[in-house]
Amino acid sequence: MGVKFTVEEMNSYLAEVFPQVQDDFRVEELTETGCVMRLMVQDRHLRPGGTVSGPSMFGLADVAAYVATMGMVGKEALAVTTGCSMDFMRKPAAGVDLIARASLLKLGKTLSVTDILIYSEGMDQPVARSTMTYSIPPAGKGAL
Amino acid sequence: MGVKFTVEEMNSYLAEVFPQVQDDFRVEELTETGCVMRLMVQDRHLRPGGTVSGPSMFGLADVAAYVATMGMVGKEALAVTTGCSMDFMRKPAAGVDLIARASLLKLGKTLSVTDILIYSEGMDQPVARSTMTYSIPPAGKGAL
Amino acid sequence: MGVKFTVEEMNSYLAEVFPQVQDDFRVEELTETGCVMRLMVQDRHLRPGGTVSGPSMFGLADVAAYVATMGMVGKEALAVTTGCSMDFMRKPAAGVDLIARASLLKLGKTLSVTDILIYSEGMDQPVARSTMTYSIPPAGKGAL
Amino acid sequence: MGVKFTVEEMNSYLAEVFPQVQDDFRVEELTETGCVMRLMVQDRHLRPGGTVSGPSMFGLADVAAYVATMGMVGKEALAVTTGCSMDFMRKPAAGVDLIARASLLKLGKTLSVTDILIYSEGMDQPVARSTMTYSIPPAGKGAL
Repeated sequence: MGVKFTVEEMNSYLAEVFPQVQDDFRVEELTETGCVMRLMVQDRHLRPGGTVSGPSMFGLADVAAYVATMGMVGKEALAVTTGCSMDFMRKPAAGVDLIARASLLKLGKTLSVTDILIYSEGMDQPVARSTMTYSIPPAGKGAL
Repeated sequence: MGVKFTVEEMNSYLAEVFPQVQDDFRVEELTETGCVMRLMVQDRHLRPGGTVSGPSMFGLADVAAYVATMGMVGKEALAVTTGCSMDFMRKPAAGVDLIARASLLKLGKTLSVTDILIYSEGMDQPVARSTMTYSIPPAGKGAL
Repeated sequence: MGVKFTVEEMNSYLAEVFPQVQDDFRVEELTETGCVMRLMVQDRHLRPGGTVSGPSMFGLADVAAYVATMGMVGKEALAVTTGCSMDFMRKPAAGVDLIARASLLKLGKTLSVTDILIYSEGMDQPVARSTMTYSIPPAGKGAL
Repeated sequence: MGVKFTVEEMNSYLAEVFPQVQDDFRVEELTETGCVMRLMVQDRHLRPGGTVSGPSMFGLADVAAYVATMGMVGKEALAVTTGCSMDFMRKPAAGVDLIARASLLKLGKTLSVTDILIYSEGMDQPVARSTMTYSIPPAGKGAL
């Protein structure tokens, strides 16, 4: 079972299904075991003091898990976030993008589980970690 | 130990410390045991199909826990999110605001724990639940 | 859709499916919206100093969510834990049982979500909180 | 800042502070970045059908995070679990031990965050993942 999108195809697909965030995120790598996503940090992602907001980091983790999951199940499928845990460990550096490294830990018939580490670009230690669970409804069934 | 802000004072304080989200959120109740917060849903909070986005729900839960915590510790203190869990249980209804009901479960010397249930206004069953942990650094110390 | 077990029937069912823990747990209430479970604290549940161990509290939260879920889906069904979050907020009191109050927040076609608050008997403030997600595989299908 | 225990010293320390579980767990590796722990699976860890119970997996993740944290802060310190998330992804294999691989993601002044992957010995894919947060109270202060 191989990955069903190239990086370019996945970026196009994201722009199509989530047009409102297409300037925020970019897929940089996509394999059977996960993906690398960039948050192109802009003013609207910041809190006073120049640090990236919690909701922006949540959004990055969520889309990275979505890409890791959809990369394997293909665009005929649906995938909706059902659960999340997240730990905020360090303040993001000012003036640099955030990079998410997502590992697809489980791809079952109805659930996927993805671990995500988020880094300020160029730094060694993660600013946040997250686990995202997606529900993958059977084809042709409603979303939940 | 009583609550240190009126509802009006807390709304003013949020506008001061998070100016970029002052049109998104409104505190409606604030007591020693928690608060009620409204997300005034606008186009920028939506995903295709009209449902409220995950990051917008995360942001609502996060600010509700912040308000419940700051309401008791007062504005001299700092509070930073360190951990979060969240479950997305139902699709939010289209065209209505989201209401968060936050319960302050623990207010310790260095940590607070708040449970949040999020509802589409007028509905009985929650669309999401969350627990947010805030670190409250000792006065005069750095944030982490 | 009503609850499918009396309290006595559920206690018998637990003894049948989890014989090794039948002296640990007792269902005290069971309704459509949740249950109350008791951990009958014994030496094997304790850490040095007399406090109840983390794994014992996890076990209590897990079985409470199982009972809340199975109470509604009936014994023909399967239910397996897929996810958990837990916060430990206070040290349990020595020499008293733990009481879990479980609220079934969602019962979907394939997932249930239950919130649990755990108290030292006779105390007002919870010692721990947890959310447990159970997968409910379609009848006749394998467990995951 | 280096690791403050050898593997042998940590095993002795665990036997001293948690005498009731000294036959359950064994530290196999301990470095600045984490540890490897073994759960020596015995009948009391099993559920009907021969699978390892949820509380046993929780206990393994918890002690692995404790060892990773204490390895760096030394035995003068205290460390108490404050938060946990856990995902159960596959059924453990029957008849083999469980191996936890713990990575210390953050060691702050008052909190540590550790990611843990749990494997059935000899298998490639994890049966569970967990993140454990420990509070490290300042020396000489009470535990919370």
